[in-house]
Amino acid sequence: MDKPIIQSLLDVDFYKDTMGQAIFHRHANVPVKLAFQNRHKHVRLAECIDVAQLRENLEHVRSLRFTRQELHFLMGTFEYNQPMFKLDYIEFLQTLRLPEFHIDMHDGQLVLEFLGEWASVTRWETLALQVVSELYGKHETQDAPRPEGGRRLDEKIKAFKANPSITFSDFGTRRRFSRSWQEYVVGRLAELFPAPSVFVDNEQFRGTSNTLLAMKYGLTPMGTNAHELPMVYSAIYRDEDEKAGRLVSSERVLEDWETEYGLGLSIFLPDTYGSDYFFSKVVPRRMLETWKGSRHDSGSPKEYGDKVIRIYEAAGIDPATKLVVFADGLDVSLINDLERYFRGRIQTTFGIGTNLTNDLGPAALSIVVKPVSANGLPVVKLSDNIAKASGDPAEVDRMKRLAGYSVNFAQACRY
Amino acid sequence: MDKPIIQSLLDVDFYKDTMGQAIFHRHANVPVKLAFQNRHKHVRLAECIDVAQLRENLEHVRSLRFTRQELHFLMGTFEYNQPMFKLDYIEFLQTLRLPEFHIDMHDGQLVLEFLGEWASVTRWETLALQVVSELYGKHETQDAPRPEGGRRLDEKIKAFKANPSITFSDFGTRRRFSRSWQEYVVGRLAELFPAPSVFVDNEQFRGTSNTLLAMKYGLTPMGTNAHELPMVYSAIYRDEDEKAGRLVSSERVLEDWETEYGLGLSIFLPDTYGSDYFFSKVVPRRMLETWKGSRHDSGSPKEYGDKVIRIYEAAGIDPATKLVVFADGLDVSLINDLERYFRGRIQTTFGIGTNLTNDLGPAALSIVVKPVSANGLPVVKLSDNIAKASGDPAEVDRMKRLAGYSVNFAQACRY
Repeated sequence: MDKPIIQSLLDVDFYKDTMGQAIFHRHANVPVKLAFQNRHKHVRLAECIDVAQLRENLEHVRSLRFTRQELHFLMGTFEYNQPMFKLDYIEFLQTLRLPEFHIDMHDGQLVLEFLGEWASVTRWETLALQVVSELYGKHETQDAPRPEGGRRLDEKIKAFKANPSITFSDFGTRRRFSRSWQEYVVGRLAELFPAPSVFVDNEQFRGTSNTLLAMKYGLTPMGTNAHELPMVYSAIYRDEDEKAGRLVSSERVLEDWETEYGLGLSIFLPDTYGSDYFFSKVVPRRMLETWKGSRHDSGSPKEYGDKVIRIYEAAGIDPATKLVVFADGLDVSLINDLERYFRGRIQTTFGIGTNLTNDLGPAALSIVVKPVSANGLPVVKLSDNIAKASGDPAEVDRMKRLAGYSVNFAQACRY
Repeated sequence: MDKPIIQSLLDVDFYKDTMGQAIFHRHANVPVKLAFQNRHKHVRLAECIDVAQLRENLEHVRSLRFTRQELHFLMGTFEYNQPMFKLDYIEFLQTLRLPEFHIDMHDGQLVLEFLGEWASVTRWETLALQVVSELYGKHETQDAPRPEGGRRLDEKIKAFKANPSITFSDFGTRRRFSRSWQEYVVGRLAELFPAPSVFVDNEQFRGTSNTLLAMKYGLTPMGTNAHELPMVYSAIYRDEDEKAGRLVSSERVLEDWETEYGLGLSIFLPDTYGSDYFFSKVVPRRMLETWKGSRHDSGSPKEYGDKVIRIYEAAGIDPATKLVVFADGLDVSLINDLERYFRGRIQTTFGIGTNLTNDLGPAALSIVVKPVSANGLPVVKLSDNIAKASGDPAEVDRMKRLAGYSVNFAQACRY
């Protein structure tokens, strides 16, 4: 095998541990199946990557263990409320061995599944994506594309420097061109946008979602939660949902999150079953007032921001005190556009993913790893872009019914 | 300047932060003066080291700042009670700039003093010793002594492997031959005495007192407190001591320590004003019962252990449940002797300093940095070896009177 792609269990999105601890404290042993999905079916992925190398790399991930330094880093996270991670979770991580994976091929596509107890299997998500993405990058670029990548990065840096109102973070771990390329990008951003001090936020470059790189480059590890929570909760609390005729499960996600972290990580992710449903039925007014803001991950970003502003105003809350974290298929021109559009109306910050860490010329993949079942029951996501909906059709229909879902927006996923 | 000797503010004994936080929370702004002392006056130290290099290296220390990774490591310390360090202390460290130093020469000896607020100036202790020790090492060994050092290290390792009942730690930061040599020694011990897991103590090699090396090599950072606390407290609470006719100040050290850390770091250091006084007057029976044990730092180690056993027995406490940390001028044969002598009677562990990190042939220095005044009042230490007593003679007499001190043991300090 070449040098293993994954060399540390911290080389994941930080939200794997913020969610990970919340899962560990409540539903550690729920059996959950995650499945890989290539959203661009025209890319016959199984024919583009070396499946033997994929297997070897995933086996290598299973051999990794946390080091004391890594556990100290997590345990020592002081950037949010603190102490944020409890010793029982750190002890759990110390014993963590990732569960087995299943690889197959079907119609030119990769079948890649992970089944295990939720607290353990959850960590596979970004690790598997990182491995597939890097193997694909090798296939795509025999002719080292790094000069073009450097040129494009310089352009972005120039654009961000030109508009100091933009604040942004690296959200590009999962679909990065390669480990070393992400590290190059983050290292360069850390150098060019230095933080005034450890306890003062970087003025423009706010941090990285990659925990290992945050440790290495002295950045804030960025991340809160993801669709995985309401999705799996919808299986765990299926009976309650059906009985109540509404998504009690999604309400529980918010309550459990606040119990776990107070307001330190209080960012809504409203689009799992449609953000209209979320804001009208799931989030109580109290949380609308106390939580810091929300993350936009699907649907029209301008419409989303306008809608959120209206919702805050209708509740008598000043939207200018609230934040929207935009994180859906961003590039520099869209960021500039959104920042100017919302300036003074609501706070914005931007989590740039694939376009930051995999913008070297060749098209990046549009791949995800999502829960497909929990406790043996199917789980799905709808999102504010029906093209992003995923999962068992009957279950999609059940959730549409419960959430009164009626989104018409559909846009092919760029990433 | 050559490569700076000190490259990180974590390159200190861990106790600088365990004490540091306790100081920060109570007496941060007390003006304290630390002074360097060479206990072997026959070594004309100022003529043996390059004073310009000393100055440059100390200036370099003043330019150092904590990194985020270092602060996470401290904040994330989970090996004792936890969370052990509070955010206010971590925030203080982030702003820490070491106070100025004063260098002079007198009669072939180095005059080296540090004056500042206690919470800041305290960190100079080991850093200054490390710099002096390494500069002296360079002077002493033009002919690279590392092969001899390696041979001696191998002998020690062999001896420890031959007696698995011995557990030991590296306490050799302050008088190490050099930064790189200590790192070599610790790295080799970590490799040859691996820990079964992050949460299970190493069976024989328990850890290192050097925080930076603990971080780097995945070891437990070792350390509790030192004479500095009762010494400075004796100035802060001088009036109370005189009024009560006893060392209320030393009693307060224990109370404050337990308030700060519970029983996580409950190791007595009884010899500051004589261990007989300490055990008969300072430590209450409750603490004798609940604290884990004590550290031996002066006087005959066998007599000390025998005495402590008698004290526990007289109090109806099983000595076999208690620990003695031996840490005074240890070498392998003394360790073997002490371990066998106390086996089954009281638990032992060994903190090896100079003999571990500066045993390459040439004699090491016997140097210390100690508080000499606080709040403008002189402070002194007596110890169980009157040859180790230091400080203003009138103050020594005052403390002897208060502590009813009558130790006759005197042995030249080897280190």
